[in-house]
Amino acid sequence: MGVVHVAIGGCRIELFQKDKYKEYIKTAPEWMKGMLKAYDDDPYARLVEMAKLAQKDGVIKGILMHQGESNTGEKEWPLKVKDVYDNLLADLNLRGQDVPLIAGEVVNADHGGTCASMNPIIATLPEVIPNSYVISSAGLGCAFDHLHFDAAGYRIFGQRYAAQALKLLGVGLPTAEELMERTVPASTNMHGCDFPRLDQDNRAYFRLFAPDVKRLQVDVCGKRYDMLKDEKGWWSAKTDKLVVGFHYYFLLVDGFSVIDPMSNTFFGCSRMASGIEVPEGKEGDYYRTQNVPHGQVRTVTYFSESQQKFRRCVVYTPAEYEKNTKKRYPVLYLQHGMGEDETGWSTQGYMYNILDNQIAQGKCVPMIVVMESGDVEVGFRPRPNKDANAERNLYGASFATLMVQDLIPMIDKTFRTYTDRENRAMAGLSWGGKQTFDITLTNLDKFSYIGAFSGAIFGLNVKDAFNGVFADAKRSIRR
Amino acid sequence: MGVVHVAIGGCRIELFQKDKYKEYIKTAPEWMKGMLKAYDDDPYARLVEMAKLAQKDGVIKGILMHQGESNTGEKEWPLKVKDVYDNLLADLNLRGQDVPLIAGEVVNADHGGTCASMNPIIATLPEVIPNSYVISSAGLGCAFDHLHFDAAGYRIFGQRYAAQALKLLGVGLPTAEELMERTVPASTNMHGCDFPRLDQDNRAYFRLFAPDVKRLQVDVCGKRYDMLKDEKGWWSAKTDKLVVGFHYYFLLVDGFSVIDPMSNTFFGCSRMASGIEVPEGKEGDYYRTQNVPHGQVRTVTYFSESQQKFRRCVVYTPAEYEKNTKKRYPVLYLQHGMGEDETGWSTQGYMYNILDNQIAQGKCVPMIVVMESGDVEVGFRPRPNKDANAERNLYGASFATLMVQDLIPMIDKTFRTYTDRENRAMAGLSWGGKQTFDITLTNLDKFSYIGAFSGAIFGLNVKDAFNGVFADAKRSIRR
Repeated sequence: MGVVHVAIGGCRIELFQKDKYKEYIKTAPEWMKGMLKAYDDDPYARLVEMAKLAQKDGVIKGILMHQGESNTGEKEWPLKVKDVYDNLLADLNLRGQDVPLIAGEVVNADHGGTCASMNPIIATLPEVIPNSYVISSAGLGCAFDHLHFDAAGYRIFGQRYAAQALKLLGVGLPTAEELMERTVPASTNMHGCDFPRLDQDNRAYFRLFAPDVKRLQVDVCGKRYDMLKDEKGWWSAKTDKLVVGFHYYFLLVDGFSVIDPMSNTFFGCSRMASGIEVPEGKEGDYYRTQNVPHGQVRTVTYFSESQQKFRRCVVYTPAEYEKNTKKRYPVLYLQHGMGEDETGWSTQGYMYNILDNQIAQGKCVPMIVVMESGDVEVGFRPRPNKDANAERNLYGASFATLMVQDLIPMIDKTFRTYTDRENRAMAGLSWGGKQTFDITLTNLDKFSYIGAFSGAIFGLNVKDAFNGVFADAKRSIRR
Repeated sequence: MGVVHVAIGGCRIELFQKDKYKEYIKTAPEWMKGMLKAYDDDPYARLVEMAKLAQKDGVIKGILMHQGESNTGEKEWPLKVKDVYDNLLADLNLRGQDVPLIAGEVVNADHGGTCASMNPIIATLPEVIPNSYVISSAGLGCAFDHLHFDAAGYRIFGQRYAAQALKLLGVGLPTAEELMERTVPASTNMHGCDFPRLDQDNRAYFRLFAPDVKRLQVDVCGKRYDMLKDEKGWWSAKTDKLVVGFHYYFLLVDGFSVIDPMSNTFFGCSRMASGIEVPEGKEGDYYRTQNVPHGQVRTVTYFSESQQKFRRCVVYTPAEYEKNTKKRYPVLYLQHGMGEDETGWSTQGYMYNILDNQIAQGKCVPMIVVMESGDVEVGFRPRPNKDANAERNLYGASFATLMVQDLIPMIDKTFRTYTDRENRAMAGLSWGGKQTFDITLTNLDKFSYIGAFSGAIFGLNVKDAFNGVFADAKRSIRR
């Protein structure tokens, strides 16, 4: 796409009228003369000349215009604009129905625009030029002269011009109402929030009201999308196609990363985050609530002797646990990754649905699942002047002591568990995978099942590590 | 406090030097002459005249200054400033050690300040004037001329002047380090977050990093505090003394209300909110985790026939519930207020601690407590052209059906409860209080204990309402 750009600051519209510009130039202020000179004292001729060059390789799809301040109060201004527009059509061999005129308002009354009284006149342009459109300046910031917009204002103004132009080209941004019809709200939204929404291609649509904010972006999985602000103060953005699954995301308000008020909150990235669930199809039913017996997710308070403080862990008990009051159950200890905590697997991971469904289908035996914070909520950062490897071994290491000395005994005392190694498993994601290796392989008398998902491993010598367990796994695990 | 204000835009420092100003005025540009005239062509004399007036009723505590642009590049500028300062001290009978000079930088290099090269020279002022201080312009927004600050920049600049002046007066804002020593982080903070903090008088201190944000406020219980931005991009604010208890709060970024990233999140105000727990003293131990047997807080999934969807409610079971597997328990249904949900009583209300402690002290019998969402997460708003009273009766009414038809039967089926009315209670806060009246008083066969805390009641005729139960409570409740 190309833009033919001809402009003179502070000029009256007469400067572009074929039969008026010569007279006008005689009255032009001193500071304008240099600018005029650059166009050989005939900006309109330059505009046509450039447009004809453009027509050699392209098609003119529209005319953008921004002027009016120096004609403030003149009710006949639209007719003068029409004169320029009609001349352009004739000189470039264009038809009005093919080439819209898109004209913007001057600095708005809502920002004390010096020439804001011109906007009602600009609004009458479509009465004179059928295929013309007026772009609102509502809410756009201005410079202290109240004549120019400020940088943020220009950016948003440009987006509004573009939105109108794209709409006329048939690739317009949908209205909120159109969006509502062909998208669904994300399941992760806050109560009563219609946005964010998802379409069938897994694009996410964001929309929120923040009239005084200067710059707003949405950051989904590290990709930042600039949001577009409309004249009423609503911001919107559309993402690329997203992969299915749960994604943390944030809003950037003037670069300051915050939670989207429209989203539920999830602890991840070492902080509370917004989240959006991009649903799988039918194949994702395994993690959805189904008409099967439902287990419970319990928060259990206990005192940690090793840390000398109260802690709360999360325990899943299978549906039958309430009824079979004599039966004992195997236990899986399930750990989250760095920057997450004991709530992750149940809140964003829907582990209770997955277990309920697996148990109902006979794909796993009823079991208790224990989820504690691995003491890695705050991201790993080695202290200055310390050895990074040594620091890494300290990071989250308190959890090993906690688990062996406090957590397992508490669970076995509180719940009807089997307490032998054959009935105790441990698994973990990422740093939780590292912790799983560190804890289970040094406590093989306590664990017989081990799972590490994307387990974080650093500098392990596979042959020697953990008494050579990786070199001969079968022998080692069986003891 | 008063400020004596004498200023000439765009002037050189020589205009305030006794032996230079007359010569300088001869060379002054045309546009300055009107301003000079207003001071009878001697701004310095006006300054002294006004200051002497001020001294009749007050004490001069400092001299604020902002100048330098028109002397850019002059290494001897500080000596010229010293000349003005020394003359002021002499003419006003002041001592340098009593009256600091506080001078600000010009528009900073980080905003492309036209005269930014002057700032290293301004920085040498304290080498010449012992009791002088330079206020950084780092990060302050500027107008498009890169000579003036913009409005937001001036506001923050003024705060920095004030912070320095207050510090010299011994009422300075503490540094983050000083704050750390005499305050403690709020218990409601996100993992690893040192702020917000509380002092012994229950003032809250906020501090966070948002270098590109233009305006930041913190809204605690509806009172907005402007935050102060330092030259590195850290914002801080101190609140009034807060009453003890849990408070929702928000940050306003350019007026856009968001959750403080430093806070845990809590569902309230119909949205996820930041929260700050202002602790009670020893008398608040009743809601703290104590060394007593601990009950569990369970999330229970069930299918609601009346709403044809799965729901999740929160159920507290007392500590002994796990062990006394034959014993049955009374049930309290406990409802939250408008704009809250089933998580409120356990998350921000610490109900599990309160119950654990009360039960351990024998102040209440072990009981099961059921907390569901009262279907009032989104605030009440009558539909247009509808009767507000009728609308109000619809708001949250779905919960009555849910509770009687789905929730109570599910609880009685899932848990070891007593199912007679003598062992079923209901209580609620605010709208939950209204729901308690509406549900229990129309189902007296099911409930024998009723509690409404600040229960929302609208237009009730106390004599007739609910078959006159309020007119003769004893008879009615007993049936």
